[in-house]
Amino acid sequence: MEPGAEKPNTPSSGDVIVHNPHLETMKEDILYHFNLGTSTHNLPAMFGSVKFVCVGGSPWRMKSFIEYIAAELGLDDPKSEYPNICAGTDRYAMYKIGPVLSVSHGMGIPSISIMLHELIKLLHHAKCKDVTVIRIGTSGGIGLEPGTVVVTKQSVDANFLPKFEQVILGKTVVRSTDLDEELAGELLRCSRELNQFETVIANTMCTLDFYEGQARLDGAFCSYTEKDKQDYLARAYEAGVRNIEMESSAFSAMCKMSGLRAAVVCVTLLDRQKGDQLSGTVHSFQKRPQILVGHFIKSQLKAPGKS
Amino acid sequence: MEPGAEKPNTPSSGDVIVHNPHLETMKEDILYHFNLGTSTHNLPAMFGSVKFVCVGGSPWRMKSFIEYIAAELGLDDPKSEYPNICAGTDRYAMYKIGPVLSVSHGMGIPSISIMLHELIKLLHHAKCKDVTVIRIGTSGGIGLEPGTVVVTKQSVDANFLPKFEQVILGKTVVRSTDLDEELAGELLRCSRELNQFETVIANTMCTLDFYEGQARLDGAFCSYTEKDKQDYLARAYEAGVRNIEMESSAFSAMCKMSGLRAAVVCVTLLDRQKGDQLSGTVHSFQKRPQILVGHFIKSQLKAPGKS
Repeated sequence: MEPGAEKPNTPSSGDVIVHNPHLETMKEDILYHFNLGTSTHNLPAMFGSVKFVCVGGSPWRMKSFIEYIAAELGLDDPKSEYPNICAGTDRYAMYKIGPVLSVSHGMGIPSISIMLHELIKLLHHAKCKDVTVIRIGTSGGIGLEPGTVVVTKQSVDANFLPKFEQVILGKTVVRSTDLDEELAGELLRCSRELNQFETVIANTMCTLDFYEGQARLDGAFCSYTEKDKQDYLARAYEAGVRNIEMESSAFSAMCKMSGLRAAVVCVTLLDRQKGDQLSGTVHSFQKRPQILVGHFIKSQLKAPGKS
Repeated sequence: MEPGAEKPNTPSSGDVIVHNPHLETMKEDILYHFNLGTSTHNLPAMFGSVKFVCVGGSPWRMKSFIEYIAAELGLDDPKSEYPNICAGTDRYAMYKIGPVLSVSHGMGIPSISIMLHELIKLLHHAKCKDVTVIRIGTSGGIGLEPGTVVVTKQSVDANFLPKFEQVILGKTVVRSTDLDEELAGELLRCSRELNQFETVIANTMCTLDFYEGQARLDGAFCSYTEKDKQDYLARAYEAGVRNIEMESSAFSAMCKMSGLRAAVVCVTLLDRQKGDQLSGTVHSFQKRPQILVGHFIKSQLKAPGKS
């Protein structure tokens, strides 16, 4: 497998870019895992107003985010409910209020990748413009107080390299995991304004596995010692990594290819240098990325010239 | 990355094997993504009777399976409900009736891998013996009539090789994806007894992606032609591949390492040589792996000397 390299187009118009000439020739596009489609749903009417898409692993968390952001934006109605737009499937959950779409993506790169293919096509079919996509998630920290929020500078792989490997027809293609630096800076500024919790900009390691892939000692299999684990985490720290999760590389690569302004905002649930096990007590931290991104969206909508 | 090779232990006692010396030193083991733990739950009492574990991507399908198997085994009570044992989390859903456990695993290798680490530890903590694990799923077929069920002979990667690559501390370790041949043969025999739908034993290709990774022409990105796609699928067919899905390689490798008798039974929802798009009309096929595995479990429980 000789890694190749692709050059994604640079967006100019604010359009959501698909790179697939076959889509134009299709009479209908079924977004199967959303239970939506171009001939069964009026996607421009349903989604044309979307400017911010927030995505996260857990469907419950993405429902709680839409309730939170509705209240923050003054768009909530005490009587209103937020129906799951993907109610016909259990693969993903999707909620919308005003310009904000909230979508779950499950755990791991393959799961978020299916969701993003269909989300990018959805935004394209709906003729959305100038869309910002933010992943709000959870992660393990390295050398940070648990509860610290990390805004990702670069998403790196298990060898601390900023790349995402996509297998196409059996061959590996390497894609860039660059994120929008200006957006990361704006999010950091929002956190300082809020002054409720610590936020840092740092590298995020993205792995294909939660146990052996993240050097945990508490999986069903573990062939390395505590010292091997600590050495690996120390090397990650030296490479600027401050948290570990399982979706940011595919997320960064796919958003970049589509011309979407993108950021990754994950709270650290524990310090991996001090342990591996997660407990129910970490739940309270999960709100922090929502609070930060909620503040950001509010500030963007208030800014002059923004819709 | 120099691929290494590991030799999994051969099971002798019917025990569920964990390969992790650190587990013995832990006072408590929190199975975080199940919302279960050794100090909060009596795992031997809850799960000690489990002999068959059926896993599949969709939580709804795994609930429907427990209702189906309860009726098949005559264990259903019209008034009874089947509570989700993992009700405290939305990561996975789990149901139990008699000796049968039904667990969802989401989409993709990372998602099933988290679930299997915690399932293997759960079965180990519960002191289960002689457990059979079967994945009942959906897949795209190659050269088969849609609705055909494929019992996996070998799970192969995107280059049609029977291996699973696990990254540990940044290094790639290669694991075998062998499945239990005798179990596959028994499942084929059950399908012939049932005589309701076509079933074949064949190789299954396991990919990290649903769109570009499976040569689909209908994703947000597609850099190859229809001919490239057909050539790739033809090469897969020549290598004995008859269906494509996204979990079988990690499933096979992890079950083998734990000494679990394992099989993969997936229905094909479409023939990929004839198209890429899935529609709602394929839902009726999803019951077929349940019917086949239900018949198998019934026959096993009836056989002399089986509990």
